[in-house]
Amino acid sequence: MDALTWRDVEGARRRIAGLAHRTAVMTCAAIDREAGAHVFFKCENFQKTGSFKFRGAVNAVACLSQEERSRGVITHSSGNHAQALALAAKLRGVRATVVVPENAAPVKRRATEGYGATVVPCAPTLAARKETTARLVEETGATFIHPHDDPRVIAGQGTAAWELVEEAGPIDLLLAPVGGGGLLSGTALAARHLLPKAQLIGCEPSGADDAYHSFKSGKRVTEFVPNTIADGLRTTLGELDFAIIKATVSDILCVSEESILSAMRFVWERMKIVIEPSSAVAVAPLLDRSLHAEGRRVGVILSGGNVDLDRFFEKG
Amino acid sequence: MDALTWRDVEGARRRIAGLAHRTAVMTCAAIDREAGAHVFFKCENFQKTGSFKFRGAVNAVACLSQEERSRGVITHSSGNHAQALALAAKLRGVRATVVVPENAAPVKRRATEGYGATVVPCAPTLAARKETTARLVEETGATFIHPHDDPRVIAGQGTAAWELVEEAGPIDLLLAPVGGGGLLSGTALAARHLLPKAQLIGCEPSGADDAYHSFKSGKRVTEFVPNTIADGLRTTLGELDFAIIKATVSDILCVSEESILSAMRFVWERMKIVIEPSSAVAVAPLLDRSLHAEGRRVGVILSGGNVDLDRFFEKG
Repeated sequence: MDALTWRDVEGARRRIAGLAHRTAVMTCAAIDREAGAHVFFKCENFQKTGSFKFRGAVNAVACLSQEERSRGVITHSSGNHAQALALAAKLRGVRATVVVPENAAPVKRRATEGYGATVVPCAPTLAARKETTARLVEETGATFIHPHDDPRVIAGQGTAAWELVEEAGPIDLLLAPVGGGGLLSGTALAARHLLPKAQLIGCEPSGADDAYHSFKSGKRVTEFVPNTIADGLRTTLGELDFAIIKATVSDILCVSEESILSAMRFVWERMKIVIEPSSAVAVAPLLDRSLHAEGRRVGVILSGGNVDLDRFFEKG
Repeated sequence: MDALTWRDVEGARRRIAGLAHRTAVMTCAAIDREAGAHVFFKCENFQKTGSFKFRGAVNAVACLSQEERSRGVITHSSGNHAQALALAAKLRGVRATVVVPENAAPVKRRATEGYGATVVPCAPTLAARKETTARLVEETGATFIHPHDDPRVIAGQGTAAWELVEEAGPIDLLLAPVGGGGLLSGTALAARHLLPKAQLIGCEPSGADDAYHSFKSGKRVTEFVPNTIADGLRTTLGELDFAIIKATVSDILCVSEESILSAMRFVWERMKIVIEPSSAVAVAPLLDRSLHAEGRRVGVILSGGNVDLDRFFEKG
C-alpha cells in the first residue's frame, strides 16, 4: 500500500460528510488560567456513538465496494470502535459482526447490539479473539476493519483535527491521546499539512506506555500489560500507526493515573461536559504543568465521553 | 413599580452583552427519538458560574447607580445566585457580601469566596438570615439583590429564552424549571413576546410543589417544607414571580424524584453534558412521557450544571 497522506484525509472528509457530526470546539477560561494558554477543545465526546472512532469507521465502510458491503464487516473490540463500526455499518445498510471477550462489561455489549451489530462472544485471550475473527471472516466473507491499524480508519480520524484548525485558527501545540495510535496518526496527517510548524504531542497513560517506549527506542513495543483507568488506551500501538507517528510526532508524554483523574474532574466541573479518562489524558499535561504551554495556542482532541455512570447514579 | 415587560428584557440584553456567555443550543437525536419531538436545549450549564443566575445578577448590578455601586451589593443564598452575584459584582469592581447559613456545603461557600465575595455565616433559620442581611444593609448601605423576587433579576433571566428562540427558530412548547420563579417568569416575558402561540410550561419537583399549588389555587403558597434532590428549586415562589407566572404560564407540571434522576442520567450519558438535578426537572416530562410532545418543536432551558462530583471521583 502507498503511504498515507493528506489526500487520504481529504477523501475521508468527503465520505463522512453528513454522516459524522461536525463537533463543537469549546474553550474554558478556568483551564486557560491554569495553563496560561489559549486552549481549544475539539469535543469528540459529542460525536455519534460518543467518540472520534465513528469518523474512521464511517470512512472505512464508505471505502468498501458494493460487493464487499453485501458481505458485511467484522471487528474485534469491546469498546468505542465496536459501537462506532456498528452504527457506521447500520447507516449504510451493512451487516456488522463484533467479536467481544466474554468478560467485557455487559453495558458495552448492549450498546453495540443497540446499534444493530451481531455480538459474538469469545474467550478473553488474544488467541481466541483472533481465531474467532478469522473463522467468521472465512465463513461469511466479511471485511475485517481493524480498530486502528487500518489506513481508512486512520484517514477518517484525521478529520477531527482538520475541523479543529478550521474553527480555532492557528495552533502552536496540538495534543491527542495515544493508545492504538489511530487518532494520533490521523491527527498527524492533518497537522503536518495544516500546521507544519506546530508541535504535535501524543499523551499516554504511564500505565500503558508502549507508545512512549516505542517512540523513544524507535522499535515498536508489542508485549506489555496495561494498567490504567483510561480503558480506551490499553491497546497496543499498531504497525502502520507507529510508522506515521515515528515520522511526524514531536514527542510523547506519559501521564499518571492521579493526573488523569484530576484532569477529568476539572473538565466535568468547569466545562460541564462528560469526558472519559482517555480524553483526560490529553488535558492533564496542561493542568499538572508537566508541559509548558504559557502564552501558546493549544489544540486538544477530547477523544470521547463514554463512561459508566453507575457509580454516580446508583442508590447509596 | 411598573409591570415588567419585554422592554425590560431588551434592556437586560444590552446590559449583559459581552459579560454573560451566549451559551450553546444543543440537540440530541436520542432524546428526540424518546420524545418523538424536535428538542432544543439552551445550555445555561455552560453559563459563567455554571448557571443562568449570572444573567440576572449581571443585569441587576448594571442597573445600579454609581453611588449604589460604591456601597456594594448583598444577598442571601448558599447556591447558584451567590456565585453569580459574586462574579457579576467583581466584574464591575463592586463589593459583594453573601449571607450563608452555617450548615451550607463548604464547597459552595468556597466557590462564592473564589469569586471574591465576602461570606457572612448565619444561623440556619429564615429569621437569622433576614436579620443578618438587614443588619448588614443598615451598616454598609449595600443594595440587596434578591435571588429571584427582583425585576432586574427576572428581566436578566429572560435573555436565555430569547437567545434560544433566535437559534432554534419557531418553538411550540417551552419548558423551564421553577423554584423561586425568576427563570420561569423571565422566560415568560420573552416567550409571550416572541412566541405568543407557544405553550409555556413550568416544571417543578413533586417534593417542592409550591408553584404548582399556587398556580392551581391562584393563591401563593408560602409555607412548605421542600424535600427534593433538585437543590436549586427548594426555594419559595416569589411574589413578583408569581404575578407574572399566573398571568402568562400555560401550566405547571410536577416531576417525581425518580424521573428527575433518570432524566439527569440520560442527559449525562447521551448528550455528554453535566447538568444539575434542577435542570433535569425540565427534561423529565419529555422522557417519562408525562407530557405529549409528539411532532412538536420543543425548547428546554437547562438551568445549570453545578453538581458535587465527590461521589463519582472519591476513591472507592
